[in-house]
Amino acid sequence: MNVQDRPHVVIAGAGFGGLYAARSLKDADVRVTVIDRRNYHLFQPLLYQVATAGLSPADIAYPIRGVLNRQKNTRVFLAEATSIDVNARKVILQDGEIGYDYLILATGACHSYFGHPEWEAYAPGLKGVDDALEIRRRILLAFEKAERETDEAKRRALLTFVIVGGGPTGVELAGAIGEIACQVMVEDFRTINSQDARIILVEAGPRVLPSFPEDLSAKAEASLKRLSVDVRKNSPVTTIQPNAVVIRDEHIPAATVLWAAGVTASPLARSLRVPLDRAGRVLVEPDLSIPGHPEVFVIGDLAAFVHQGDCLLPGLAPVAIQQGRHAALNILRKCRGLPSEAFRYADRGSLATIGRTAAVANFGTVKLSGFLAWIAWIFIHIFLLIGFRSRFIVLFEWAWAYATRHRSARLITGGGNTMSPVS
Amino acid sequence: MNVQDRPHVVIAGAGFGGLYAARSLKDADVRVTVIDRRNYHLFQPLLYQVATAGLSPADIAYPIRGVLNRQKNTRVFLAEATSIDVNARKVILQDGEIGYDYLILATGACHSYFGHPEWEAYAPGLKGVDDALEIRRRILLAFEKAERETDEAKRRALLTFVIVGGGPTGVELAGAIGEIACQVMVEDFRTINSQDARIILVEAGPRVLPSFPEDLSAKAEASLKRLSVDVRKNSPVTTIQPNAVVIRDEHIPAATVLWAAGVTASPLARSLRVPLDRAGRVLVEPDLSIPGHPEVFVIGDLAAFVHQGDCLLPGLAPVAIQQGRHAALNILRKCRGLPSEAFRYADRGSLATIGRTAAVANFGTVKLSGFLAWIAWIFIHIFLLIGFRSRFIVLFEWAWAYATRHRSARLITGGGNTMSPVS
Repeated sequence: MNVQDRPHVVIAGAGFGGLYAARSLKDADVRVTVIDRRNYHLFQPLLYQVATAGLSPADIAYPIRGVLNRQKNTRVFLAEATSIDVNARKVILQDGEIGYDYLILATGACHSYFGHPEWEAYAPGLKGVDDALEIRRRILLAFEKAERETDEAKRRALLTFVIVGGGPTGVELAGAIGEIACQVMVEDFRTINSQDARIILVEAGPRVLPSFPEDLSAKAEASLKRLSVDVRKNSPVTTIQPNAVVIRDEHIPAATVLWAAGVTASPLARSLRVPLDRAGRVLVEPDLSIPGHPEVFVIGDLAAFVHQGDCLLPGLAPVAIQQGRHAALNILRKCRGLPSEAFRYADRGSLATIGRTAAVANFGTVKLSGFLAWIAWIFIHIFLLIGFRSRFIVLFEWAWAYATRHRSARLITGGGNTMSPVS
Repeated sequence: MNVQDRPHVVIAGAGFGGLYAARSLKDADVRVTVIDRRNYHLFQPLLYQVATAGLSPADIAYPIRGVLNRQKNTRVFLAEATSIDVNARKVILQDGEIGYDYLILATGACHSYFGHPEWEAYAPGLKGVDDALEIRRRILLAFEKAERETDEAKRRALLTFVIVGGGPTGVELAGAIGEIACQVMVEDFRTINSQDARIILVEAGPRVLPSFPEDLSAKAEASLKRLSVDVRKNSPVTTIQPNAVVIRDEHIPAATVLWAAGVTASPLARSLRVPLDRAGRVLVEPDLSIPGHPEVFVIGDLAAFVHQGDCLLPGLAPVAIQQGRHAALNILRKCRGLPSEAFRYADRGSLATIGRTAAVANFGTVKLSGFLAWIAWIFIHIFLLIGFRSRFIVLFEWAWAYATRHRSARLITGGGNTMSPVS
């Protein structure tokens, strides 16, 4: 078959779902185009470590071209998709368009501030590399400003860190900031004591890590308390202001507020004109295609997939990876004239880490916590990273941090480096 | 002696000069305050590798607090100095002031566009981490845009890289871009051939590396040509426009223009009200102090030090390091009532590298070029890095790049990641 006559598969988004879909099409008789608005694939589960100065962006981000360059049926486009025209079978880009025979839509999710977009400026969320560097800048700058602040109330606000949202990202951020304050920086300042920092984790529901079993939630909370993190459960945030958070009637002055509470699906979903769930995700068919368009598949954080009765699959890397592979498989079946198959999720468990040497892991029948869960967490994450170089560097950085209690990426970059008044 | 009664030494700037001065005062009976507008010390000789995606910023930048935290007589201030009041013995900050008994001024140099500040937007220079990330973004984005460009002339402009200035920074940048185009990216694109990139190094004078002996300049030029770098000597730049450079009458369309041609001293020098040279540097006394103020020392790139008759010392790290140590020594002598001593520079040679496996080295009696100079370059730079972690990571990254021809930090971050039209 002439190369130009082969079916054209367009994959929008090179996160876990899109990248594993592309790799599954490696030797297939199709032409593949991967579109992403960034030139790199990001290993998002470790992004909080970039935000807390433990790793560099390049340790967990790979150029998409580098990952796919030997896959000769595949080309990579740096482009931003703005909508999908399912009838004309075209992806509309900011600067052009691209036709497809099959589409895999994997553009993920972004922050949602529950109808309060104005909070974003005061409480950045953690989705991309630039977010992580901004959060790192804010955390480190708060300590620097506190060291020079003479007003006691302002200094206290500078040393108060509020993390909104008690899911895995919020727990991991709070644990890492606790570690920085209590262990990494203790010798670094002359005026302040970094151990005086208040780290407050705010969760609207009755427990942290709501997707984990209750006993693991309790263990995670205990680990957080050992790192001096003040865990506030049943505490919905009323409002976020510049340098303050209000929880019900309590006004907490805090120079650093981080958002880990909610996400919403990429707005691209709306252009498909199919039913969405409340978070904007596409209600996909059992084979991951969309109603009325068997050639369009939606996967990962963008898909609402009903699993075991009425429960929706969570927005986790393993879900996206398995769905990416499955969508690719279904496209190959269709190319051969076979019917598509329903997707089934193989749940291999979930993990979250809390600072140095503590974690919780739920493998279904086996539940782990403490040091053993932390070791499991380390090896699973090292294994999932792409390429020998990243595995080696990240393992070295962790061993170094473990041995020395140093954090290697304590740089304040971007934005204004200079000191401006607190408020 | 009561701690508060000890002489107060203020060091402005934590580059090579300032940091080595502070370390030399480690066990001295003085109070030391180090002021910098950044929270990190930067190993500037390797900054071009950050700009060309070989290293991450954290590999060559260390938190100043981390370097000095065990030095109990020293505190670190993140602050921007705006002027010096030598009569009141005060450093004026953007947000306050700080008095001193002795001052070491080591705030270095910034880019100079020879009276054309408007060129800066089109041709960024390489001084700080943010500059390096911006240059990296421009280089990588140019290849991405070229891959999608259908207009032949625009694609050619996107694949043209002009580096203005044939000193060490310009030579190292041109060599690294040549390496990326000819070796790193060859399999990555489908429309363009990265080896078609034109890399033009523009030097106003008669040879590259003018501070090196003539035979080494010729060897460096030959190494650049092997990496397909077009070396234009005796070619002063007439003007720089958006997406183009004019050399005399020749108009060269180029989407990426980098500036490595000139620096000027930090504007702080002017507030001292002492004679400056044409580049704005302070004409220091033989003991590195300034005329009329034996308690103020100026070192590094900010100082114009007359060496061996009428030749000025160059703006190199070894000069700054030796001057930093010497200024600290002179302060300690003055504290003990002894006269200060004249500074004498011990020239241990200079090196520049050109892409993979080539370099030139001038150790006075011994001149090296090619592979041997490259090995010397590697070991001297690894030795000069601070701390085991950086040495280990940088050596690993180089070995990895050598073995695989990959570059580990090929990330387009900051600015706009999305594709905008060429002009």
